[in-house]
Amino acid sequence: MRAIVNESSFPANFTVLKATMVELPALNGQSVSYALLQFPASSVNPPHTHPRSAELLFLVDGNLEVGFVDTTNKLFTQSLQSGDMFIFPKGLVHYQYNADTNNPAIAISAFGSANAGTVSLPKTLFATDIDDAILAKSFKTDVSTIQALKAGLASR
Amino acid sequence: MRAIVNESSFPANFTVLKATMVELPALNGQSVSYALLQFPASSVNPPHTHPRSAELLFLVDGNLEVGFVDTTNKLFTQSLQSGDMFIFPKGLVHYQYNADTNNPAIAISAFGSANAGTVSLPKTLFATDIDDAILAKSFKTDVSTIQALKAGLASR
Amino acid sequence: MRAIVNESSFPANFTVLKATMVELPALNGQSVSYALLQFPASSVNPPHTHPRSAELLFLVDGNLEVGFVDTTNKLFTQSLQSGDMFIFPKGLVHYQYNADTNNPAIAISAFGSANAGTVSLPKTLFATDIDDAILAKSFKTDVSTIQALKAGLASR
Amino acid sequence: MRAIVNESSFPANFTVLKATMVELPALNGQSVSYALLQFPASSVNPPHTHPRSAELLFLVDGNLEVGFVDTTNKLFTQSLQSGDMFIFPKGLVHYQYNADTNNPAIAISAFGSANAGTVSLPKTLFATDIDDAILAKSFKTDVSTIQALKAGLASR
Amino acid sequence: MRAIVNESSFPANFTVLKATMVELPALNGQSVSYALLQFPASSVNPPHTHPRSAELLFLVDGNLEVGFVDTTNKLFTQSLQSGDMFIFPKGLVHYQYNADTNNPAIAISAFGSANAGTVSLPKTLFATDIDDAILAKSFKTDVSTIQALKAGLASR
Amino acid sequence: MRAIVNESSFPANFTVLKATMVELPALNGQSVSYALLQFPASSVNPPHTHPRSAELLFLVDGNLEVGFVDTTNKLFTQSLQSGDMFIFPKGLVHYQYNADTNNPAIAISAFGSANAGTVSLPKTLFATDIDDAILAKSFKTDVSTIQALKAGLASR
Repeated sequence: MRAIVNESSFPANFTVLKATMVELPALNGQSVSYALLQFPASSVNPPHTHPRSAELLFLVDGNLEVGFVDTTNKLFTQSLQSGDMFIFPKGLVHYQYNADTNNPAIAISAFGSANAGTVSLPKTLFATDIDDAILAKSFKTDVSTIQALKAGLASR
Repeated sequence: MRAIVNESSFPANFTVLKATMVELPALNGQSVSYALLQFPASSVNPPHTHPRSAELLFLVDGNLEVGFVDTTNKLFTQSLQSGDMFIFPKGLVHYQYNADTNNPAIAISAFGSANAGTVSLPKTLFATDIDDAILAKSFKTDVSTIQALKAGLASR
Repeated sequence: MRAIVNESSFPANFTVLKATMVELPALNGQSVSYALLQFPASSVNPPHTHPRSAELLFLVDGNLEVGFVDTTNKLFTQSLQSGDMFIFPKGLVHYQYNADTNNPAIAISAFGSANAGTVSLPKTLFATDIDDAILAKSFKTDVSTIQALKAGLASR
Repeated sequence: MRAIVNESSFPANFTVLKATMVELPALNGQSVSYALLQFPASSVNPPHTHPRSAELLFLVDGNLEVGFVDTTNKLFTQSLQSGDMFIFPKGLVHYQYNADTNNPAIAISAFGSANAGTVSLPKTLFATDIDDAILAKSFKTDVSTIQALKAGLASR
Repeated sequence: MRAIVNESSFPANFTVLKATMVELPALNGQSVSYALLQFPASSVNPPHTHPRSAELLFLVDGNLEVGFVDTTNKLFTQSLQSGDMFIFPKGLVHYQYNADTNNPAIAISAFGSANAGTVSLPKTLFATDIDDAILAKSFKTDVSTIQALKAGLASR
Repeated sequence: MRAIVNESSFPANFTVLKATMVELPALNGQSVSYALLQFPASSVNPPHTHPRSAELLFLVDGNLEVGFVDTTNKLFTQSLQSGDMFIFPKGLVHYQYNADTNNPAIAISAFGSANAGTVSLPKTLFATDIDDAILAKSFKTDVSTIQALKAGLASR
């Protein structure tokens, strides 16, 4: 881990390195894959879902605020410390946040699928040309708020 | 259909009547269920996912704008007319919108699970106490915009 | 529905319109499909099985006598009215009958497979050249009765 | 085999000895089971289906006429000799017949389920009180033929 | 059985005749297969596993000592007589031994997979060039013992 | 990781820390689990199988010799360095060996099952009272060699 996560190469933004069937074709048919999650200080992995697998996160270094919402709209949160594990159930919306303003956090996540898939909700909702009026009505807000959200997310 | 969808009883807001394992215990183990979707004029079924099944929608009456976003963030939309069908693939974010300002629309949707589950994204994201700062950072906006969205969705 | 089920086009015999993987290739891998069942007055959907799925029937219009037989040879029947649902468990023999001598019935059925398959028993048993002697012995009758049944079913 | 299939104990009618989860609870969760099929001379195993598994038949002794019908109503038949194997695909109607008027036949069948289930069609159709009129219409015959079939099958 | 297992053709060593997807392509997708096991006097089917299925053994003739070891390292053994059945659970190490010094034994085994696979442990461990030092350390013995085992198994 | 893998607490022998359904009941139904593998210098994880899952190993620190044998008895080996991954396919025999005589190695392994199971072959074969004669015949050696192997493995 030291070899691949050294000070000088640590990314400036939240970054995921995936080891799925796409990157490692030998995983085809083996129903398992990895993601290496690198959180610089104060960074977030925005709310998302994995359509094809639960996620078992192992916090290798640092601290992490995590949460998921079940199908009854109940929020579950936890503050993880280095060495802790946390399970995000299959198909549910979840996020991770490194609240520490000085230190990075590193986690490795395992999936029970060679291709779990990721649906990032900010981008899926506000960076894919869904009609402004439909989004405004859905989020019970006005079109100008939707357009502001779209502008913010498009800037990346 | 006439019996259950008459003029006088048509709901004022978008309404789902479900026939899943919860309502019909006999569906347990049978891997199939229904939802009856009633759209008054200008109503929306907000973006959502079903963690455990694809959805096959059959538009019984009216017109409907539908869309889903795949895992590469590509949006697929279609304008359905009475008698049309549309498949929303498993686990992907999708919505339906009755753009007609005068007439209702009625659809029936089939699921290949007795308990497909629904994750409504506006409520999951903004009506479940996820920390304002985490949401602001995730949606690349400020805390006051998040709080305004939360207020709008909480009001229902 | 009005568009596809109008008075003038209603079929003279029991008719199934299928929406499976065969007709809609997009259903491939989505584990869901539909059949639209049109029953003119006094018509029957003969006893049959679906090898790969249960069937969830929703009676859209009219009345329908339905039944299935479980693996202990127990018969379950029900008289459905417009708006009712009924589940035919996976792999079991079942039928539907519109006993009304004046009015048609219309149902939509959902399957938890993109290709549920249908084994129609009268045709499978008596219109496929299974040896007369084998059938006579199986149904504990004589060869002439088998031949009469075959003649009746072949005439269609 | 000699121990369980000796001359004196051979049954007078077609007989199945099952080794499924019901008889051997240890098979629970193991997805495999057996049936031992004993055919006296000129006996038949009537057309039937197994809802939960294919059947792989191994003819231990004697000769056997076998057949199944696929979902396009095509009949496949074969004449088996001692030592032959035959696969009946999952969910399809099939039968076996010992056409030899003097000698018995013995087969062992394997199933890829601990509880494959059996739907015997003569009994399911004509010994379970399905309404005579529904059956007559389904088999395109008259009520008296149906009643004769029912009487023959009820006599056992 | 008589036809394929006669005195003159009985093999001198333990022999398996397989009927899997490889030998019978029609088994593809049917989740069932067979193996015919022929044990001359005093012969053994060495410890092995089947990665993709449980095994249901039916002892057709003779006597057989059988055993398997569960994941808590508990050994289960049984002495089978002609006509007995025994289930070897999926993935566990098991063996069969014909302790009779004069008479052969014949068994047929069913698998709930068209391609159960076999991992023979003596050959997998000692006839595949795994490094001597690794094996010595693993089996808590010395390199010369490992080399003697390898020589014995290579001689076949 | 530093927190849980510090110098003073590093184990003297190869040690596995598991995070499966047994240790974390929340993993039930989620089809994913972890094992943390700690290899002191010159230590081995002996040949074993996991009946219910493939294993995706991520080498966190140190170097590791790994290998598995496929069902055709072909051996695949690789020398891993810190940061490398390796997939052991489902049900196949595999091992890991830290050949470094001075430095430890640490790996984390993911499984696509909440309860992958482990069958350790030295113990399963030689520490479970399988009859000496059966083992001698299976491994083509003499009873005294088997007894020596048993004594070595029992001593632990």
